[in-house]
This record gives sequence, C-alpha cells and structure tokens, in this order.
Amino acid sequence: MDGDAPDGPWRRVSRRRVYENPWIAVDEDIVALPSGATTLYGVVRCGSCVGMLPFVDDEHVLLVRQFRYIAERTTWEMPTGGVHDGEPIEAAAQRELAEEAGVRAGRLTPLTTYATSKSVVDEIAHLFLAHDLVPAAGEADVTEHLMVHTVAFEKALHMVLSGEIVDSMTIVAVLWADRLRRCDPS
Amino acid sequence: MDGDAPDGPWRRVSRRRVYENPWIAVDEDIVALPSGATTLYGVVRCGSCVGMLPFVDDEHVLLVRQFRYIAERTTWEMPTGGVHDGEPIEAAAQRELAEEAGVRAGRLTPLTTYATSKSVVDEIAHLFLAHDLVPAAGEADVTEHLMVHTVAFEKALHMVLSGEIVDSMTIVAVLWADRLRRCDPS
Repeated sequence: MDGDAPDGPWRRVSRRRVYENPWIAVDEDIVALPSGATTLYGVVRCGSCVGMLPFVDDEHVLLVRQFRYIAERTTWEMPTGGVHDGEPIEAAAQRELAEEAGVRAGRLTPLTTYATSKSVVDEIAHLFLAHDLVPAAGEADVTEHLMVHTVAFEKALHMVLSGEIVDSMTIVAVLWADRLRRCDPS
Repeated sequence: MDGDAPDGPWRRVSRRRVYENPWIAVDEDIVALPSGATTLYGVVRCGSCVGMLPFVDDEHVLLVRQFRYIAERTTWEMPTGGVHDGEPIEAAAQRELAEEAGVRAGRLTPLTTYATSKSVVDEIAHLFLAHDLVPAAGEADVTEHLMVHTVAFEKALHMVLSGEIVDSMTIVAVLWADRLRRCDPS
C-alpha cells in the first residue's frame, strides 16, 4: 500500500542542535503542520544499529548477558550494536558478532529493517540471522562487559514470550525466526 | 534465568539535565564503570507508550496511516501513543484507541512490555490485542492527522514480513498475534 500523507507532509521551519555527545545528538526543530500551525519537535539522532541472532546449530543460539545502564539491570539479548559512520551494515554486523560473541558468521540472512522508536529517535535497526559461525577475535568496547551463553532456541523463545527478554531487536528476531522455523523450515 | 551483572552495576557519579521539551528530556550522566573508569552517558527520557492491535473481527485489524516527522513519510501502524503522567496503562490504551481509531475495546489482552531502544531512550512499550470494539469519541492530538483502515490480518502480516511496516510496536504485535493464531487459536 502506498500514497501521500493524509494531510501532506510537515515542513521544517528551523533546526538548532541543542545537545551532542559521541553517541547521540538532539535537534530541536520548529515544524509547520498541514493546518498552518507550528509545533516544536525534538529529534534524537543516533543513526543505525544492527542485531544478529547467531545460531550455533539448528536448535541453539548465542545470547549475551550484560548490564544495561538505562534499565539499571542485567538483561539477556542477542548481540547488537551501533553502525559506525560510513561502515557497511553487514560489516557492522560481523564486527559486533566478533566483539560481543567472539564469532564470525559464514552466512548472514537479513530479516528486516525497522524504526525502534519512531516518535523520538531516528534509530533504524537492521536484523539478521547468523549461521555457519566460526571463532573470531573482536575488541570489546571499554563500556561493555558481556557474558555469552549458548541457549536452546526454544528457551530463547520462551524468554521472549514470558517477557524476560525485553530488547526490541531480540524480540523481533526471535519471533521472526520462530515463524521461519515453523512456516519455512528449509 | 537471573543473576548479578557480569561485572556489577555501573554507578552514577553525577547527572545534569541538558535538554527538555514537553515530550522528551535529556540527561547527561557521568557513570563509573566496574573497571573504575568513568564514561559519559546521555539518557533520553520519554517514559511509557502503548500500542494496540485492534481486531474488528477474527480476520481483520485496524491500521492507521499517518505522516511521521522523523521518517519524513507516511507509515502504516497500529494505534500507538504516549502514556500521560499518572495515567494507568490500560486507560492510556483506551484513550489512544479512541483518539486514533475512534473505538473502545471491550477486551484488552496484554501481550508484552519491552524497551524500544535500550541504549538511548528509557521508553517502555506496553502492547495489547484489542477485541470487542465499539465506537468511541476521542479528541485527536493537534499534531495528529490520521486515516484509519480496516485491513485483513494476513495483509498486515504480509506488510510486516515484506518490510513495509517499520514500526517496532506494530511488528512485535503482529508477529505475536500471528503466533497466537497458529499456536493457541482459542
């Protein structure tokens, strides 16, 4: 399905950078709505990220356990991370697999590309299944302290369905993989 | 699975509010890592949101089409929106259903609660299936210009699997509903 915006696109009147650090920037825009009214819109910029669900074999995946500062607790997730400036998406996926899980994927299968938080952040997530894993050396980020675990896929699925896994990228990848396994087991 | 953080929790040394508008705020924290090093961490605060997949009947759902400023295009999504300060989650779900789709749900079924963008934003999304819809009057936000469409669930699923639907909340809810329909058709 396609077509124009119900009321035509919004028009940016002005933009000022109100905050910046090495990972995110915030722009405050003044925007003209189709009605003619104007509104303020804060846009958080952090660019693209990648998330890979690595299959050790047909029935087991790698999950990483790490402390998440915003959540203030440890979480279970698949390997995820930001795409560097100018870095090809698949290169970012392989780099993060190496850094977080110590593996390289012989085969990366793209699942989907989506907006994690469409109203607030420009973050776009690229999800992959990773197969044919081989050991690889990666240098972890200084802020990352990870533990890698091999988990049965059915256990990971249960952790999604029970609400134990709360990461958007991991939830989408596990549900997507579950559907592929049941509908397209090739 | 549970347990402590691999290297113990990070400790906040200081916090300053670097930006605020009516919808988001940004805090810049200085954080002590388990290694003893410190790092800067920008946390975007926008609180909780709700997303509801409304079933008109067993085979059809309501999707809304609207212009998304950050994506700079119109998108197909289920009704979603922010939870107001102090507002119960299910009240927010019913308010957004009324505002965006003109309906009230006789039955809201919680699916899951997750972090949309765990590294950047504190946003927590609460997802529901909505059934037994009845007409309801809601006052749309001045910035919202929506068109509501009835779409076959299988079409919505296809829009997720093809990458046409890019909203995190809608993707999770549609994949989750698909799984329930095939594994627990009660």
